[in-house]
Amino acid sequence: MKALVYHGPGSKSLDERPMPKLMSATDAIVRVTRTTICGTDLHILKGDVPTCEPGRILGHEGVGVIEQVGAAVSTFKPGDHVLISCITSCGKCDYCRRGMYSHCTTGGWILGNRIDGTQAEYVRIPHAETSLYPIPAGADEEALVMLSDILPTGFECGVLNGKVQPGSTVAIVGSGPIGLAALLTAQFYAPAQIIMIDRDANRLEVARTFGATACVNNSSGDPVAEIMKLTGNIGVDCAIEAVGVPASFELCESIIAPGGTIANVGVHGVKVDLHMECLWDRNISITTRLVDTVSTPMLLKTVRSGRLEAGKLITHRFGLNDVIKAYDTFAQAADTHALKVIIEA
Amino acid sequence: MKALVYHGPGSKSLDERPMPKLMSATDAIVRVTRTTICGTDLHILKGDVPTCEPGRILGHEGVGVIEQVGAAVSTFKPGDHVLISCITSCGKCDYCRRGMYSHCTTGGWILGNRIDGTQAEYVRIPHAETSLYPIPAGADEEALVMLSDILPTGFECGVLNGKVQPGSTVAIVGSGPIGLAALLTAQFYAPAQIIMIDRDANRLEVARTFGATACVNNSSGDPVAEIMKLTGNIGVDCAIEAVGVPASFELCESIIAPGGTIANVGVHGVKVDLHMECLWDRNISITTRLVDTVSTPMLLKTVRSGRLEAGKLITHRFGLNDVIKAYDTFAQAADTHALKVIIEA
Repeated sequence: MKALVYHGPGSKSLDERPMPKLMSATDAIVRVTRTTICGTDLHILKGDVPTCEPGRILGHEGVGVIEQVGAAVSTFKPGDHVLISCITSCGKCDYCRRGMYSHCTTGGWILGNRIDGTQAEYVRIPHAETSLYPIPAGADEEALVMLSDILPTGFECGVLNGKVQPGSTVAIVGSGPIGLAALLTAQFYAPAQIIMIDRDANRLEVARTFGATACVNNSSGDPVAEIMKLTGNIGVDCAIEAVGVPASFELCESIIAPGGTIANVGVHGVKVDLHMECLWDRNISITTRLVDTVSTPMLLKTVRSGRLEAGKLITHRFGLNDVIKAYDTFAQAADTHALKVIIEA
Repeated sequence: MKALVYHGPGSKSLDERPMPKLMSATDAIVRVTRTTICGTDLHILKGDVPTCEPGRILGHEGVGVIEQVGAAVSTFKPGDHVLISCITSCGKCDYCRRGMYSHCTTGGWILGNRIDGTQAEYVRIPHAETSLYPIPAGADEEALVMLSDILPTGFECGVLNGKVQPGSTVAIVGSGPIGLAALLTAQFYAPAQIIMIDRDANRLEVARTFGATACVNNSSGDPVAEIMKLTGNIGVDCAIEAVGVPASFELCESIIAPGGTIANVGVHGVKVDLHMECLWDRNISITTRLVDTVSTPMLLKTVRSGRLEAGKLITHRFGLNDVIKAYDTFAQAADTHALKVIIEA
């Protein structure tokens, strides 16, 4: 089969690889019909993710059709249409039983990281019964690819952790796909203001069409002063960090209101300065989270009902044969204006 | 009247000062019968609290008897026995109506900071109806002084923010009065383990008698390794920071389990390193808080019922004439083994 293989920092290619085989009674083999590329895949290609070794098929998002199931799998059968979660969960360990699937002791984020992933014609899914979701008949398959990772990540790590509530003032730092996913799902809770912050004018324009009430371009000027002005000098109740660099985290520290929450979504590679000398008495919370995908069934309903227009995040489409071009398009988003790119297998 | 007056960094004296007068219809004048000294008073004396100007009478804790009330005060009358809260709250502003009394727009921590405090024979209490609590007849007045600040602080900022639950594993970094207040009140919620960490062997010994299940002296050795060993290499569900320096905060970062909460109680003067490169995917929370004293009525009941032995925190007693000696005893706790010192006016 064809698969996009990581060959070490800076190196990848579309290779011929053997079909995956069932390795455990709880596995399923899925024929991937659509997948996508995540910012995390770019991190891997930079060499930032040591758990992902050369020779690995990348990708942790996708939809497909069950090809084969292990003897212990009773809730899925060949031919079933399924959504692949970026998080593999056994459903049995202490963490899974607390809903912290991301910390499953035999799962978590392993797809396209510790085991071969979805940017291929077929993929092996361990713990299939608790790591796949059935796709209802008639659903828009392409839009559902957004439910593998990006929408639950923006929703769980940003909106739920950030305690967005009716009337809240929300700032989202980073208007890339994850920030936009937080923007779309924050609107479930009727916040009063959603301020998007980014250095890319195009992404801010997209954010405005997606429902942002104000946009701040922090490539120049004084973004803190602008945000304080927008919030009556109080700051925001919820600051969602959707970039993953110290400057964006520290911007959140500067704009958080007393009693507010900084919800981190970004993947960080280095430490940040936490200004406890300013924050110790501010009654704030800071949260971190690797998405658990506990909200996937809920989000599936919002997509089905039309309340969440997941497909809006998709800007480009490629065949698997053009996956290298898809990577280039996604990586050069400032020029291509790419958000999420769909790869059809 | 006699009062302990701050005269700038390093300087204080017991001075003769005029009696406080009612300045607003919502004020009360309280004759202070017992007060105490807080670690924050020592911070002021180091010059760390710029809002507290020379000439200020220090102190934000105490009990006493109402001497006089303003025209708008109907819930208290002269002769009533009252507990003074360290937090002054109007009860009407947006923050007060959210229970965030510490951020009251005309109150908060002002006593012994922005206005004259309790280390005197008399004190003026603004917003008296919502900043004083009636003391039930027959209550142990001395023990109730611990409810002005230290017990609600340990409880709200440490135990409640830290989400201590039955079966939780708790670490408290700092076994001074505030850490011990957290230790006493954490036991309301039946945690499985409470590990106390301090550099002072005497304070750890006290912690053991107060209910700590394990003590770690971090003046030498590898405290992280010890705590990981005590928790089956998982870390703690709740880490309460009760010191206020970068090293103690960063120790909390190193011992927090996935899904856990770092509850900051300490007053910080400088930034700390937040190791987001390790924590971004750990599903943790970090909380900060200036005590709101919303739990004071609840804590009053636990003291009255005998469930909370607040008086255990008191080690020394002085008359107001000996307040300088009381400060010396409190400041040299390593030698004197002082926890809280009571000053009788």
